[in-house]
Amino acid sequence: MAQKPSIPKGTRDFNPEQVAKRNYIFNVIKANFERFGFQPIETPSFENSDTLMGKYGDEGDRLIFKILNSGDYLSKVNDALYATKNSTKITSKISEKALRYDLTVPFARYVVQHQNEIEFPFKRYQIQPVWRADRPQKGRFREFYQCDADVVGSKSLFQEVEFIQLYDAVFSDLKLEGVTIKINNRKILSGIAEVIGASDRLIDFTVALDKLDKIGEEKVKEEMLSKGIPQSGIDQMQPLFTLSGTFETQIESLKTILNSSEEGLKGIEELEFINHAISELKLNTAKLQLDVTLARGLNYYTGAIFEVSAPETVQMGSIGGGGRYDDLTGIFGLKDVSGVGISFGLDRIYLVLEELNLFPETINQSVDVLFINFGDTEALFCLKAIKALRQQGVNAEVYPDAAKMKKQMNHANKRSIPFVVLVGEEEMNSNLYTLKDMISGEQTKLSLQDLISRLK
Amino acid sequence: MAQKPSIPKGTRDFNPEQVAKRNYIFNVIKANFERFGFQPIETPSFENSDTLMGKYGDEGDRLIFKILNSGDYLSKVNDALYATKNSTKITSKISEKALRYDLTVPFARYVVQHQNEIEFPFKRYQIQPVWRADRPQKGRFREFYQCDADVVGSKSLFQEVEFIQLYDAVFSDLKLEGVTIKINNRKILSGIAEVIGASDRLIDFTVALDKLDKIGEEKVKEEMLSKGIPQSGIDQMQPLFTLSGTFETQIESLKTILNSSEEGLKGIEELEFINHAISELKLNTAKLQLDVTLARGLNYYTGAIFEVSAPETVQMGSIGGGGRYDDLTGIFGLKDVSGVGISFGLDRIYLVLEELNLFPETINQSVDVLFINFGDTEALFCLKAIKALRQQGVNAEVYPDAAKMKKQMNHANKRSIPFVVLVGEEEMNSNLYTLKDMISGEQTKLSLQDLISRLK
Repeated sequence: MAQKPSIPKGTRDFNPEQVAKRNYIFNVIKANFERFGFQPIETPSFENSDTLMGKYGDEGDRLIFKILNSGDYLSKVNDALYATKNSTKITSKISEKALRYDLTVPFARYVVQHQNEIEFPFKRYQIQPVWRADRPQKGRFREFYQCDADVVGSKSLFQEVEFIQLYDAVFSDLKLEGVTIKINNRKILSGIAEVIGASDRLIDFTVALDKLDKIGEEKVKEEMLSKGIPQSGIDQMQPLFTLSGTFETQIESLKTILNSSEEGLKGIEELEFINHAISELKLNTAKLQLDVTLARGLNYYTGAIFEVSAPETVQMGSIGGGGRYDDLTGIFGLKDVSGVGISFGLDRIYLVLEELNLFPETINQSVDVLFINFGDTEALFCLKAIKALRQQGVNAEVYPDAAKMKKQMNHANKRSIPFVVLVGEEEMNSNLYTLKDMISGEQTKLSLQDLISRLK
Repeated sequence: MAQKPSIPKGTRDFNPEQVAKRNYIFNVIKANFERFGFQPIETPSFENSDTLMGKYGDEGDRLIFKILNSGDYLSKVNDALYATKNSTKITSKISEKALRYDLTVPFARYVVQHQNEIEFPFKRYQIQPVWRADRPQKGRFREFYQCDADVVGSKSLFQEVEFIQLYDAVFSDLKLEGVTIKINNRKILSGIAEVIGASDRLIDFTVALDKLDKIGEEKVKEEMLSKGIPQSGIDQMQPLFTLSGTFETQIESLKTILNSSEEGLKGIEELEFINHAISELKLNTAKLQLDVTLARGLNYYTGAIFEVSAPETVQMGSIGGGGRYDDLTGIFGLKDVSGVGISFGLDRIYLVLEELNLFPETINQSVDVLFINFGDTEALFCLKAIKALRQQGVNAEVYPDAAKMKKQMNHANKRSIPFVVLVGEEEMNSNLYTLKDMISGEQTKLSLQDLISRLK
């Protein structure tokens, strides 16, 4: 192979610095998931095609990566079908497995398959890659990680309260201050649709309302009209377009608008419960904001809807989202299992932390100390000290060859190694180690014991 | 969907306990990789097909999972080819990507692709899943993790010394005492083949020798004869079949056998270097053993060959292996980059730890403390304490609903939660928390401060 190798578009290699930064985020999320009582599960990278197909709409079906059957897979296609050369129809005959498209459907499959072993309510988290045959673009990849936490088997609104606290805890730990946790409720949206006489156009109505931020009030109204929502209804919801003030004052306005809708008032009650608990428990650095335009994948959600925005100083879409869905496992035949969950957008959080320079300074520090190699005898002497250091948890190594001093020092610099140790004949005779601080340039001769305590 | 969902054969769901146990092993391996100065990289789950195909032999090519192209993929197949209905030939037209088969080839691709950004010698580790369309059987899966550490760009034998130390460190940390690290050298095998006049039958010779453990001396000799190795040669290598004693005494016998082979003597020299260093540095719990029958994927290795066996009390194949290969990146056009690396067999290590009962007892402890829910007011009171506990790193949660006391206590038991906290009206009035030890049954009333110090 003459030309330089490459990787498929939309995929990425991660170098040590990138892996360290990604793991830093993963570890903060994981630690908080566990602090909140979530337990990890993992599911296979590929599922049977019929587990995934038909769960994400037609567009989703097209974006699912299919795996070709092994062996003489074409022999399973009968000649009549083969003669059509119809890719769509032939796919299901030559491919039985497909790569995971998200973590939610596999989780639903997991819950149904293992329902007899699971102790409910079940709080699970899952951090694994997913794959989508989407057109790659800035910030959109064909392989990316999802970080999900969900509770199944509990209708308690305290779950929603906990998820808001969890978002706050994670972003506070990441030192990303000033994120906004937006909340809405499907029942509020249904209530508004009911009040304005558009119950049969709930999706059209919310899709239009969801665009308020992007296209503005006038365009939203135009879209609603074009979708058959009557002018009278649009007039009636006018206060929604200018809803502002605190959570409480917005709730008061909503009560007026929704006072004839039982469902809408139920949504308000839920929001008030959550807001009351959060104001008692307080948030560390995030703020909670009511956003009645928030819809996300509405067909999914039946109660709370969440979305998290990065601090206003950064241009970035949402960095997290979620909500309650009352029939997660129904698609696999297990009815009446309520679920509620949230997700963290790893790649976007990474970009935000990078832009705001919030990664810890030491993250790129691959190893704590490099021993310079002056020859086999010296290197073996060094390895004894290195063994003792490692047993104390210090990351240490000796340069593999007795290369020129300058080359070895350059290596330490390029890898941002903060200390080197020099051991020549003199040091070996006196059983001492010359420790050099690569930043200050300072050199000290130390016994092994002192070297360990210094580097530990 | 009426029937219970399932997953593709050869794949696995992992429940929280299994994930915790797997992560325990991963974390010990990772911590040691880093302590030895290795840095993590990650590569995409799928590669361009031409990166993988032809690298693992015909059998390997068949076992690689291929991903179907998106869209109307059949339109790219010309009619003449399509008419053949030849699966093998059509595959390359309808599939451009394939799932990673191991971590070595993607690593070689990575090194060549990023050669200008990499600071050599480059010590990388990689812990990621790989996929093989193999027939599933006990302990063999279609999706499994590999844990590899390799150094590229250094011919120093200290790398081999380090890898032996690394194996010892990992298995000692896992409390798996008594593993045997077997070592051999390709040059020894070439030397023997040369001496017995079978240089042109090196692979046949080593494949047969490799079976000594399994089929015994007589059958090995038969196989060698049947492959055209002369009886005189077999007689000449007779001492090999009964080689025993210490590393040093075996080396002395080998010197006699190999004294006419320059390459063989070079192999001995290398083994002596490594053995000398290891006897100076000592091993904590593992033992190093010379095994001249060890060959593994010989076409690969050019120097040292490693294999790790579980303690003799356990029936299990190798739990790790590796070696030196002098031309890792040659397949992608970058010559003269020597590599040496080892791998840990996660699934087998898991089985061994399970069988010997070596997982830490607390591994199944999902959460440190569960607060019993007596109603919304009490739950909110509890959540304030829970927030304080979590900030001190304690994993804590409140039962989501005010279910019957018995149900909540059962939930704590089933999830192996060691403590529960009970907060009723009395506790709320006096600002105290009743902590119950779920094992001893003992109950104590504590202030928040004392609760935190007790659970921390």
